[in-house]
Amino acid sequence: MADIRRIGILTSGGDCAGLNAVIRAVVQRATYGYGWEVVGIHKGTAGLLSRPVEADVLNLSQFTGSLLRMAGTVLGTTNKGDPFDYPMPDGSRADRSTEIVEGIRELGLDAVIGIGGDGSLAILRRLAEQGGIPLVAIPKTIDNDLGDTEVAIGHDTAVEVATEALDHLQPTAASHDRVMVLEVMGRDAGHIALSAGIAGGADIILIPEIPYRIASVAGKIDRLRQLGRNFALVIVAEALRTEQGEPVAETKQSGDVHYGGIGHYIGRRIAETTGAETRVTVLGHIQRGGTPTPRDRLMASSFGVHAVDLIAEGRFDRMVAWVDRGVIDVPIADAIRAYHAVETEGALVRTARGLGISFGDD
Amino acid sequence: MADIRRIGILTSGGDCAGLNAVIRAVVQRATYGYGWEVVGIHKGTAGLLSRPVEADVLNLSQFTGSLLRMAGTVLGTTNKGDPFDYPMPDGSRADRSTEIVEGIRELGLDAVIGIGGDGSLAILRRLAEQGGIPLVAIPKTIDNDLGDTEVAIGHDTAVEVATEALDHLQPTAASHDRVMVLEVMGRDAGHIALSAGIAGGADIILIPEIPYRIASVAGKIDRLRQLGRNFALVIVAEALRTEQGEPVAETKQSGDVHYGGIGHYIGRRIAETTGAETRVTVLGHIQRGGTPTPRDRLMASSFGVHAVDLIAEGRFDRMVAWVDRGVIDVPIADAIRAYHAVETEGALVRTARGLGISFGDD
Amino acid sequence: MADIRRIGILTSGGDCAGLNAVIRAVVQRATYGYGWEVVGIHKGTAGLLSRPVEADVLNLSQFTGSLLRMAGTVLGTTNKGDPFDYPMPDGSRADRSTEIVEGIRELGLDAVIGIGGDGSLAILRRLAEQGGIPLVAIPKTIDNDLGDTEVAIGHDTAVEVATEALDHLQPTAASHDRVMVLEVMGRDAGHIALSAGIAGGADIILIPEIPYRIASVAGKIDRLRQLGRNFALVIVAEALRTEQGEPVAETKQSGDVHYGGIGHYIGRRIAETTGAETRVTVLGHIQRGGTPTPRDRLMASSFGVHAVDLIAEGRFDRMVAWVDRGVIDVPIADAIRAYHAVETEGALVRTARGLGISFGDD
Amino acid sequence: MADIRRIGILTSGGDCAGLNAVIRAVVQRATYGYGWEVVGIHKGTAGLLSRPVEADVLNLSQFTGSLLRMAGTVLGTTNKGDPFDYPMPDGSRADRSTEIVEGIRELGLDAVIGIGGDGSLAILRRLAEQGGIPLVAIPKTIDNDLGDTEVAIGHDTAVEVATEALDHLQPTAASHDRVMVLEVMGRDAGHIALSAGIAGGADIILIPEIPYRIASVAGKIDRLRQLGRNFALVIVAEALRTEQGEPVAETKQSGDVHYGGIGHYIGRRIAETTGAETRVTVLGHIQRGGTPTPRDRLMASSFGVHAVDLIAEGRFDRMVAWVDRGVIDVPIADAIRAYHAVETEGALVRTARGLGISFGDD
Repeated sequence: MADIRRIGILTSGGDCAGLNAVIRAVVQRATYGYGWEVVGIHKGTAGLLSRPVEADVLNLSQFTGSLLRMAGTVLGTTNKGDPFDYPMPDGSRADRSTEIVEGIRELGLDAVIGIGGDGSLAILRRLAEQGGIPLVAIPKTIDNDLGDTEVAIGHDTAVEVATEALDHLQPTAASHDRVMVLEVMGRDAGHIALSAGIAGGADIILIPEIPYRIASVAGKIDRLRQLGRNFALVIVAEALRTEQGEPVAETKQSGDVHYGGIGHYIGRRIAETTGAETRVTVLGHIQRGGTPTPRDRLMASSFGVHAVDLIAEGRFDRMVAWVDRGVIDVPIADAIRAYHAVETEGALVRTARGLGISFGDD
Repeated sequence: MADIRRIGILTSGGDCAGLNAVIRAVVQRATYGYGWEVVGIHKGTAGLLSRPVEADVLNLSQFTGSLLRMAGTVLGTTNKGDPFDYPMPDGSRADRSTEIVEGIRELGLDAVIGIGGDGSLAILRRLAEQGGIPLVAIPKTIDNDLGDTEVAIGHDTAVEVATEALDHLQPTAASHDRVMVLEVMGRDAGHIALSAGIAGGADIILIPEIPYRIASVAGKIDRLRQLGRNFALVIVAEALRTEQGEPVAETKQSGDVHYGGIGHYIGRRIAETTGAETRVTVLGHIQRGGTPTPRDRLMASSFGVHAVDLIAEGRFDRMVAWVDRGVIDVPIADAIRAYHAVETEGALVRTARGLGISFGDD
Repeated sequence: MADIRRIGILTSGGDCAGLNAVIRAVVQRATYGYGWEVVGIHKGTAGLLSRPVEADVLNLSQFTGSLLRMAGTVLGTTNKGDPFDYPMPDGSRADRSTEIVEGIRELGLDAVIGIGGDGSLAILRRLAEQGGIPLVAIPKTIDNDLGDTEVAIGHDTAVEVATEALDHLQPTAASHDRVMVLEVMGRDAGHIALSAGIAGGADIILIPEIPYRIASVAGKIDRLRQLGRNFALVIVAEALRTEQGEPVAETKQSGDVHYGGIGHYIGRRIAETTGAETRVTVLGHIQRGGTPTPRDRLMASSFGVHAVDLIAEGRFDRMVAWVDRGVIDVPIADAIRAYHAVETEGALVRTARGLGISFGDD
Repeated sequence: MADIRRIGILTSGGDCAGLNAVIRAVVQRATYGYGWEVVGIHKGTAGLLSRPVEADVLNLSQFTGSLLRMAGTVLGTTNKGDPFDYPMPDGSRADRSTEIVEGIRELGLDAVIGIGGDGSLAILRRLAEQGGIPLVAIPKTIDNDLGDTEVAIGHDTAVEVATEALDHLQPTAASHDRVMVLEVMGRDAGHIALSAGIAGGADIILIPEIPYRIASVAGKIDRLRQLGRNFALVIVAEALRTEQGEPVAETKQSGDVHYGGIGHYIGRRIAETTGAETRVTVLGHIQRGGTPTPRDRLMASSFGVHAVDLIAEGRFDRMVAWVDRGVIDVPIADAIRAYHAVETEGALVRTARGLGISFGDD
């Protein structure tokens, strides 16, 4: 049993539904279960670069009830800036990892719980190694692309929001004889598009793991027409590239505004090829802020409790994971390595094909 | 009491939530209450241009339960093509109103119920006059810009969807210190942006009825920062123009794909002016297809029943309306004339200002 | 213009969705608009009976975003104990109104905003008169039985929750050939049952304003069967009495537990009379805690802002109201008098009858 | 490869969300994938007892879009009557299994897909053995008590509805200083109560797998009070018994009306023991009819496709199952045997205890 009195917790990378449920579980378990103090670090690693460090002792008394149900993270987060290669105001890059480690020391923490996706966890692990900081990791990513856990926090809610978007688009598509294209999140992988596409009744699912041709997409739309269907639903992962494998030219960055792109590309190509009246929706950040599903809350609660228990047992450098109806833990390093793209011969792709859904590859 | 045996019903213009509830109410009232036959005309006036006319006798037996709860319109609709100035394949324009009137005659209808917004109702009324067709109108428009009725079908649901979008954007905005811009529907008026903006906790509401300056918008964001708020929610009606009053250059039509524009313009201008990390979401067609709210279903049911009763009483050329907790009816001509933009000194604008919401005009 | 520096606010009677949105609007308008201090009084009048008085100065900084979206009241409320006839621990009754008035004086308030239904507002008004306290009232009641305002806070959300319950019961009723009875709130009036019944597709609506006979209810179920419908949805207001006009014997109070009753009575009578497999659901307190609908938030915001403005103008003893798309205000006394039961010949009852819904009276 | 031309499908036992999604997937896979005919058998085995058999060939053309999103089963179902011990009108019991087998033969089916819980599947398997009918099974049960599959259709949606009920009860509990008791489904097992209790923020979870004492429940409520919490949320599985292990006396059957019981028992005991104002809600059939969650739709689609594929491969007497992110299949007999009660030392119970939730056993 490790001698612990005070632990830190931070959320890192893009926010998602369920982070607050993790924080609540950690504070409850650590405070009531072990009598520790829990320090919330603000804005991920960015809060550790400020001086004084941005952090405060968490007290659950005020938000017990509602924190569980709120999307986002009360700690704040950031997805800008790898501390080992930090973008400086003058445009240069600097290694600021030492400052981060000092920040953690300044807080007098006996261990740290880091919540993040594969990128964030890799950085946190490197920082922990460098500074000798006992670290436990909790996986979160709406993309669900971590291999060693069946569940990462935030994915279930993102799929729900994307599915509801298809539910909303279907009647208006049918009323107007339209092709509706929905672009959903998934920076590297097509998990959200695949799951929401099946659950929301898409006719065509385009994901980066499966190369597509517009001619094949158009062919599917034609076959639907021949079957008497007057509309089509197409779901597209934002990570998709053009037919030629290029990132979409229309994705613009002006100031700091971010534009969706691939959805509009696909929509335009479909309109040109099929002549169908086509409309495009880029779902965007709405996917992050949905009310956490019960499943995301349940997983978040399980992960938070188990992460605290790992600290109590002195078992560090491990990530909690959900496998076969239970919480386990695995080495962080393994979890990061085990990247989980959509398996192109996996159960869900086979299900989709079995339902007659096209991936634009036939 | 008119001698009625067979009536027609059509939905016209953009689809919205509640249309099916109207259709259900009309069929139930006409069939069970009066013993009439109800003919559903497909795709609005477009179905009347086909030969044979696209229409069939409606039979409620199969969808009694669920039709009430489904968005869209089982009849289909169109918002392309004023029959008095119809776009022909060769690029010319033609008056096809005679064909429409003949189509209605072919169906042997004693009266027609037309469901539409101000544009559609004006066309339907002109057709009815020309052809001597007894017409009763039911107002629907997500914009809610008809003056003689407090309620038009579809608006309440559109506001709910837009409000939920703000509910989803708020936690992610707060987690990342961002300005979130949401572009909502409202082709001519700012009603959705105004109502959803208040209900969803927006800080800034930009609508076409109130001229704005980006400097004022930026000033509001600065004042929020000074109060310790790290994020801002901005809602924008699609009918808004640039600061100089121009339609947004970025709105593109390529093939038949439609792009949102003004939201991205506002987002870019905010990012440039304030330096804030800004994200833009164009809500798009998701607003049309939400599950009808109870209020939309209630109004739709009331309108459908009353429209049938008007036919039974032989009172034509009238539009049903909701005023002071009750259904009334008004001359269609009056209703079309009484355009209802957002009243810039009205109750909701005063409420918004009272809450400290900025319209970008101070 | 009244000389105001510090106002109080309390919520009274049963809680409902939208109360927090009112509180938020009041604090924002009073603090940012006029520079006043706002004191939140806890637990309605009960907080004013404690010594020291239970209250604190409200500071919106911590809950700006989410308070708008949360049901319930952060101030707490009570619906036990008329201070003029207060139930004492020894079982006796006492007039404690003087203590309440002293409590308000102790807080140094220049005016008070009271949020409540007709019962609470009558008590608050009497207290205000007795103590010379400038009072402004805001109507809330899930029952919507106040005559001088088209809208009271909480009703729209309650109708939504009840409608969703019917939406959930319909498929299971249809799958099992069942009669489903849903008992909804409405202590005195049948508004929720009527609106949710129409919106949720009920076949039979039983409300206290319309006397019913079980034979008529059974007759309707038989007619549905003859039309090929294998199930029926029945919605019942809790204020309903037995066929003989008695309160339901099964409503029990044991300890302080409250049981639904009339729904089970109706269910048993239907089962006995028709032989149909019947299931009863008593929706209960779930109706109070739904996420406030956009409309409830919008009305709440409008009422809150206007109530503060009334105080600024020195116009007291008035209740804010919503009439004809706008906020007005009326004498509290008038509003209490104008009780608004369901109009048995009103628009919604006529709509329901037009849809073939039975009230058990034919 | 089996020589298949025509298969049957039936839903058996209590309905739940996701059944229609299974039916849709089966029809799509069988019709478009293999060119078979699919016969829908009405009302579970009851439809096979009628003469002529109640069934029809399924044609997906009319409900492609919405069937996926609708709760219930368009085939109808029954949970009355084990055909091997069938309740006859005269009160006697009869073995009617031969009639069922003859009914299936009459339909000329090459194989049957049966969707049900453990009870239904055991009966179907015995019928299949007796009649030599090739059978494939799909697990559905809101209780999730089948051991060989991580997922059964309907559970995820039932948990969502129960969680939302707690979300609704929390604010009203907090506003009124109340103990709220929610009785949820779970005829034999406590899975719904456990998952929804954690996800919905319950303070106390009472399930049949863990013996409880009211004194312990009251003790937890007292400790919450001492921590400053003014309310408590209690969730109770309907399968719970009294403290003495008796079924609840108050559960009444009058005619065919079913009353909840254990929730009221627990509520009364808490009120008596703690003096807290207590309210009880029996959630009832609302749990069955929620809009299927994306996860239930996804699992349903996967199960439906895989079940058809099993038939195509001639692999019968097997149940599809979800294990480790994939669809597999197991012998039906094994699946029925592997009853899955809540593991009292399992991950979720440990999570709950880690969060400080009481099971009334300490």
